[in-house]
Amino acid sequence: VLERARLRDMAAAPPRSFQLRKADALAILSAPRADAWVATASGAGAAHLVPLSIGWDGERVVLVTPSASTTAGNLSSSALARLALGGTRDVVMIDAEVVGSHPLAGAPPAALAVFAEQSGWNPADEPDADAYQLFVLRPVRLQAWREANEIAGRTLLRDATWIDQAT
Amino acid sequence: VLERARLRDMAAAPPRSFQLRKADALAILSAPRADAWVATASGAGAAHLVPLSIGWDGERVVLVTPSASTTAGNLSSSALARLALGGTRDVVMIDAEVVGSHPLAGAPPAALAVFAEQSGWNPADEPDADAYQLFVLRPVRLQAWREANEIAGRTLLRDATWIDQAT
Repeated sequence: VLERARLRDMAAAPPRSFQLRKADALAILSAPRADAWVATASGAGAAHLVPLSIGWDGERVVLVTPSASTTAGNLSSSALARLALGGTRDVVMIDAEVVGSHPLAGAPPAALAVFAEQSGWNPADEPDADAYQLFVLRPVRLQAWREANEIAGRTLLRDATWIDQAT
Repeated sequence: VLERARLRDMAAAPPRSFQLRKADALAILSAPRADAWVATASGAGAAHLVPLSIGWDGERVVLVTPSASTTAGNLSSSALARLALGGTRDVVMIDAEVVGSHPLAGAPPAALAVFAEQSGWNPADEPDADAYQLFVLRPVRLQAWREANEIAGRTLLRDATWIDQAT
């Protein structure tokens, strides 16, 4: 049902295997200057959505955004986010929980280094570096799909653990 | 601040004019098989995010999604959504309010026709057509930007009205 509108688009290509989807998802997460659409919500139930550069250390997503931004406020209050990477027809969708929130000066150096290296931007170099907050997010669920024939088996990581086979 | 990470990317290209941005945004909204990232929130403050096909009638966004989906539930309870179209570096960002919510059989024929024509998919043809809900959303604010040099002037529509100049 989810991707019924894409039924038309089912190509001759069969659905990717779990291993291939996982490799493709990791490639999208690791790509230089990868961006994510980051959805968060206020306690009052208003959704926010922004594109942000990410860092990916192999297990965690690192985000840096002004501490005064709506996204930072929502991440701080809810400790939850939903991230989309890739295109609308080559989706990597991540439900994540905030496991670290740090003013830039107090951020774990490894997390900041991963972010700066991948994004090509080191916020610590900015004159207003103290206006930024670094968040570390742990994926709790990760799904990846392209077209309707990949809806089955789209969940690759569940309860923060990579599963070993498509389900 | 918002797009500091993209400062590097400022090309020789000057920021687009208001009129060009508006034309570009309307082209993205009107494109055959346009998709949007649709962010909604539950009353409990959990953000949801999905890619959905859209219909654009020149003033309103039409979405069709299963009435049992999280997105439909959130749209029904909050009557708000935030939509992103285009890429993360060619953004059209829309804050919208729900002005119509209809079981498919009771949907305004013009809205359904716009959706079916643009998406290439008519949900009324599905055997489980009664499982779908059609939503009509009115953009309250629309912003469009590419790189850091387009952050100024990114708001093209405010209070549901196109503004006449970049601000």
